[in-house]
Amino acid sequence: MAEKEISQAVISRLPRYFRYLGELKDEGVERISSQDLSVLMHVTASQIRQDFNNFGGFGQQGYGYNVEYLYTEIGKILGLDHTHNLIIIGAGNLGQALANYMNFERRGFVFEGIFDQNPALYGKQIRNLVVQPMENLREFVTAHNIDIAVLCIPKTAAVAVADDLVKCGIKAFWNFAHVDLNVPESVEVENVHLSDSLIKLSYNLNANHHEA
Amino acid sequence: MAEKEISQAVISRLPRYFRYLGELKDEGVERISSQDLSVLMHVTASQIRQDFNNFGGFGQQGYGYNVEYLYTEIGKILGLDHTHNLIIIGAGNLGQALANYMNFERRGFVFEGIFDQNPALYGKQIRNLVVQPMENLREFVTAHNIDIAVLCIPKTAAVAVADDLVKCGIKAFWNFAHVDLNVPESVEVENVHLSDSLIKLSYNLNANHHEA
Repeated sequence: MAEKEISQAVISRLPRYFRYLGELKDEGVERISSQDLSVLMHVTASQIRQDFNNFGGFGQQGYGYNVEYLYTEIGKILGLDHTHNLIIIGAGNLGQALANYMNFERRGFVFEGIFDQNPALYGKQIRNLVVQPMENLREFVTAHNIDIAVLCIPKTAAVAVADDLVKCGIKAFWNFAHVDLNVPESVEVENVHLSDSLIKLSYNLNANHHEA
Repeated sequence: MAEKEISQAVISRLPRYFRYLGELKDEGVERISSQDLSVLMHVTASQIRQDFNNFGGFGQQGYGYNVEYLYTEIGKILGLDHTHNLIIIGAGNLGQALANYMNFERRGFVFEGIFDQNPALYGKQIRNLVVQPMENLREFVTAHNIDIAVLCIPKTAAVAVADDLVKCGIKAFWNFAHVDLNVPESVEVENVHLSDSLIKLSYNLNANHHEA
């Protein structure tokens, strides 16, 4: 399979397909045409077919897609047919909010630990987790087969902490620190730069107002 | 100016330029060439020049860009030369985490109020804000000239609440609810779908492992 050649733009759209198909499945819908899916999702039917063709197509032309099959197959492609073990680095407001959010676990993303460098937080319980010192990291990552680290620490610390985590065997970062990490190419990074997102909204609000 | 014609891909990159230029400015750097900026940001110099040409170019070829000027101009384009007034809808973990995060205010995004439908939270103080009932929304939005609403509520409530907020005069949504809003075209929406982002990371982790 040539999965590596699939563009990040296509991959960015897959979770949204997965979400809509999950909702259709929950509503008891068995089949859906690319036309109906396109109306629901506000994208063109042609884009849907092109996106799905990257993975062999999934459906019969003219007969529509089997919702449950498509949901399952896209889930497999997204790696959601097995669980991922995560740790959260930084037990501040955001780290705690993520630890408390149950929906990630329903998708197989299991928070196994939360770490902070502030001794005042050691031992603090957040849902089923207890804040641990950073010194425990290396041993914990190995013992619990952690593959994803969630960075909820200030940008001044994030680059160095990421380096350490790579040495501990972390293969992927979900990065909320407002800085671009500098990790080896074999390590995956997904950035959630909240300020950048808010600034983009500001631009669109501005442009819309001045031009409308 | 033809701001409307600028692609969302270019606009998505502007906050990152702004961030790097802010850091260069803080480090006392006065001028930078597109080549040096490209090395720093891991993008091609050609892309930088193309992106900047959407806004008239900013710099002298061969002489480099004036960092402070470029920072200021991009800030203006992004609408960061004036403040925005925001409200947070939903005072759960995420809403509280955002309310507590000071960096948004430094960029001119001022949280003026936080609202929830849970009476148990009414009156709760979060930094300088006090949780208010949703019934206060309409009056508050008008009185405080609110232009952006931050949705930190479950997806089941988000679409209806967004409709109400549009009627109250809200012009932009920063949407953390895991659903696509259905608002008029004149209203801006910037989605932060955390689950989609985490699922994309899962895909890349998976693809990387199977293919490497």
